[in-house]
Amino acid sequence: MATEAATTETPDAYEELLERYGRIAGVGDAASVLHWDQEVMMPEGGTPARSRQLAALSAVRHDLLTDDRTGELLDELSGAAPAADTGDTDADEPSGERAAVVREVRRQHERAARVPTELVEAISRTTSEALPVWEEAKAEDEFDSFAPVLEELVALKREYAEHVDPDRPPYEVLFEDYEPYLDLDTAERILETLREELVPLIERVSDSDVELADPFTGSYDADAQEALARDALDTLGYDWERGRLDTAPHPFSTGTPFDARVTTRFDESDPLGALMSTIHEFGHATYTHGLPDDGYGTPLGENRDLSVHESQSRLWENHVGRSEAFWELFAPRVRERFPDVDAGPRECYEVANRVYEDNLVRVEADELTYHMHIVLRFEIERDLIRGDLDVAEVPRVWNEKMDEYLGVRPDADSEGCLQDIHWSHGSFGYFPTYSLGSVLAAQLHAAAERDLDDLDGQVREAEFGPLHEWLTERVHRHGQRYTTPELIERATDEPFSAEPFLDHVETKFGALYDL
Amino acid sequence: MATEAATTETPDAYEELLERYGRIAGVGDAASVLHWDQEVMMPEGGTPARSRQLAALSAVRHDLLTDDRTGELLDELSGAAPAADTGDTDADEPSGERAAVVREVRRQHERAARVPTELVEAISRTTSEALPVWEEAKAEDEFDSFAPVLEELVALKREYAEHVDPDRPPYEVLFEDYEPYLDLDTAERILETLREELVPLIERVSDSDVELADPFTGSYDADAQEALARDALDTLGYDWERGRLDTAPHPFSTGTPFDARVTTRFDESDPLGALMSTIHEFGHATYTHGLPDDGYGTPLGENRDLSVHESQSRLWENHVGRSEAFWELFAPRVRERFPDVDAGPRECYEVANRVYEDNLVRVEADELTYHMHIVLRFEIERDLIRGDLDVAEVPRVWNEKMDEYLGVRPDADSEGCLQDIHWSHGSFGYFPTYSLGSVLAAQLHAAAERDLDDLDGQVREAEFGPLHEWLTERVHRHGQRYTTPELIERATDEPFSAEPFLDHVETKFGALYDL
Repeated sequence: MATEAATTETPDAYEELLERYGRIAGVGDAASVLHWDQEVMMPEGGTPARSRQLAALSAVRHDLLTDDRTGELLDELSGAAPAADTGDTDADEPSGERAAVVREVRRQHERAARVPTELVEAISRTTSEALPVWEEAKAEDEFDSFAPVLEELVALKREYAEHVDPDRPPYEVLFEDYEPYLDLDTAERILETLREELVPLIERVSDSDVELADPFTGSYDADAQEALARDALDTLGYDWERGRLDTAPHPFSTGTPFDARVTTRFDESDPLGALMSTIHEFGHATYTHGLPDDGYGTPLGENRDLSVHESQSRLWENHVGRSEAFWELFAPRVRERFPDVDAGPRECYEVANRVYEDNLVRVEADELTYHMHIVLRFEIERDLIRGDLDVAEVPRVWNEKMDEYLGVRPDADSEGCLQDIHWSHGSFGYFPTYSLGSVLAAQLHAAAERDLDDLDGQVREAEFGPLHEWLTERVHRHGQRYTTPELIERATDEPFSAEPFLDHVETKFGALYDL
Repeated sequence: MATEAATTETPDAYEELLERYGRIAGVGDAASVLHWDQEVMMPEGGTPARSRQLAALSAVRHDLLTDDRTGELLDELSGAAPAADTGDTDADEPSGERAAVVREVRRQHERAARVPTELVEAISRTTSEALPVWEEAKAEDEFDSFAPVLEELVALKREYAEHVDPDRPPYEVLFEDYEPYLDLDTAERILETLREELVPLIERVSDSDVELADPFTGSYDADAQEALARDALDTLGYDWERGRLDTAPHPFSTGTPFDARVTTRFDESDPLGALMSTIHEFGHATYTHGLPDDGYGTPLGENRDLSVHESQSRLWENHVGRSEAFWELFAPRVRERFPDVDAGPRECYEVANRVYEDNLVRVEADELTYHMHIVLRFEIERDLIRGDLDVAEVPRVWNEKMDEYLGVRPDADSEGCLQDIHWSHGSFGYFPTYSLGSVLAAQLHAAAERDLDDLDGQVREAEFGPLHEWLTERVHRHGQRYTTPELIERATDEPFSAEPFLDHVETKFGALYDL
């Protein structure tokens, strides 16, 4: 049928598809602005109207994507669309770009066409309403008040997965919303490897007699912290003409190549927390900034997927921001903002890399224990969606797994299963991409180190241009031109693997903790 | 045909229309959030993406509104839709509400459906291009470089009017985009009355020997001005849980009953300017807050039109914020924020009401001369659209009329016919609503004074509850339930008239200037 359709292709079918997709993308980006506003600016009372606005955008986007005409154009153009794995053509070869556009729009079209508009609207409405419920449940430490909403969201997302593909396990289907090309088997294999390798490594760190520096024992003014975060963004090369920094309860980054914003939050007892979170979100924003302007409104101007996105944030956070070289550069800036703190580069490096085995909170976790927080969430959400775990059991299972993986137990659900926003967003299948991103960050950083002359020396000298260029050239500028495995292999000359990450943490924490 | 259609009406046609309109409204409100963000938050570089997002929302909204199904539903329901002038039924009577919804959606549908998409796009493109041309022409004081674009916009809007209704004068048709139910004859009659009565009054003020106080001769810190603006919003009863205050280059208010925001700007030489502008925008926001929550997403939850909206801002700005009673209440707050200023209630009252006869700029005009700026613009734009005035003649006619009405002549077009953004937006017919709103504000305030026990005394005591309730009951809660003339007559027991406004200015300025 593809061949038949190709012969009847109208000359401007591709132009029409691009125009149509441009509108779809415009509506989607408008929704992102509304989400940013909701988290950062919107007054409390705005929720009911905002929910309905977002539901309308979501429905409109869904209708455009699933429209018969979209399907017809894709069919007309399908002769020009090779299968997803033929990535051997040149990146800039027009027919390759066109095939990628058709592949990506088709994937979205098919997924959306299978889900009834009413269900899409119900999910959008329920998640908007769930947000304040989750916020209050967390503030009040009352899982029971969040449980009914969570149950409803699990049911809605199972129903969604059933519509997309009734023949595959629903969690596998949901995972593809965030990570369409790295299959769930690969993801599970990597997460299992992390559990197997990191649990004993964390135990060795726990048993180590080494005591790393911890010079930040006072209270640190939020305004000075914000100034420090802005210093960091300046130093790393954030494009302020195309972005802004604000505070949000749950830091995130969002936007387009023309306007990629960063948020952070300030804890007066932990000045490096906000700094590292800012660098993390900077990594996301710099990926968005690196997408090609002239691809805006097409898949060629959109980021690949969440794992790749997270690889950019983790690369900047962990491989730059937590490196000895960075602290040789940046420790004096900390000293400027907090003159009372007695911390040189080595002390800052140590505190930025302390392993907190008894930490309960994912977003405060160190580079090592972080992944156990993810493995735990992955196992719980997978079982929830599979139907192997009741919502009511979540707090108990959560606490048991914390004990098993990290040897600690939360006293309160607010520090346990209520800590993250994701499930209130209806995002099941999202968490694994955090760890996959960290693993990919290590692989990309190792490749950049091979390609660039003395990357550490560049960091020490605040020369971030070559790293930005390398990442833009290897990752950002391609948008969705390649599938994730293709992109990884082209960027690093190797298939996706956990080895560089495991090497990185063994080396770093081995040295730090004298293992 | 209406009767025939009514007999075949499906039971849920009205529900379907509401759902469809809810989506249209949701998309429109999303665009408002994007506009707010663009004016208040967006980094400079964001414009290209934002323009495309707004174009996508505008196209989607237009498609939904003009969709055949929208027309079919309206036809089905038209048996239930009495003509616009049957407003005798009770406000809360369901069939009356339903008829109003059908009337309002039909009006929007018909106007949108009659204009070809190409023309809508041409107008959108031309106005986008006109904006920077106007900005530069104003900056360079070169009317000639703006003239060709203005000519094109006049031609396009004439063509637009021709499509909407070829049988009526084009300016009348354009005026209805902003003011659908107050017919142009009424508007013209009122504007003529203003000209006839105000020109001699302004002359008498000019000739008066009275010199009003002007105690604000220093420089006033923007942070303290913002604190004062927040004091004013607190005092007047702004609902912060459903709003926020920010700064914007051109102050405006936008939002929904759940989230109606206010912006202002600070001029360090003019602290009362920002305060009055904040109170003005507060009036707009309080109208939006007063719309019924449960009408959200339907015409019953939307504001009537621009004149009614402006009546709310002008009522709070001029009849509350510029009253002696308000300054007895609020002068001490000014003193708190600016301890160096020696201004009691009387001095504040006087400076808030100074007439600046030699002012050339509309947005800096006082309560009295303001309307001559509007009359002048109305006469010019009406004649342009009628074809009675060439674009090339605009500067000459502008300057002559300024001389005739206010006794001043701009030296430069940048302070003359290039000062306002409206025509570069293609907005012809918008200006009159500013004066109509002021006139209506006076009529509403006079009615409220009759109904409420000692309104001035309430203002002096910061008891704004009764006035809020009166306005909500008489105006806000009805949304678009009634046409504008119906709404005015129900609210004030009198037809729309310039008399209360003329009484108000005669009394106030007569006393102030000892006329």
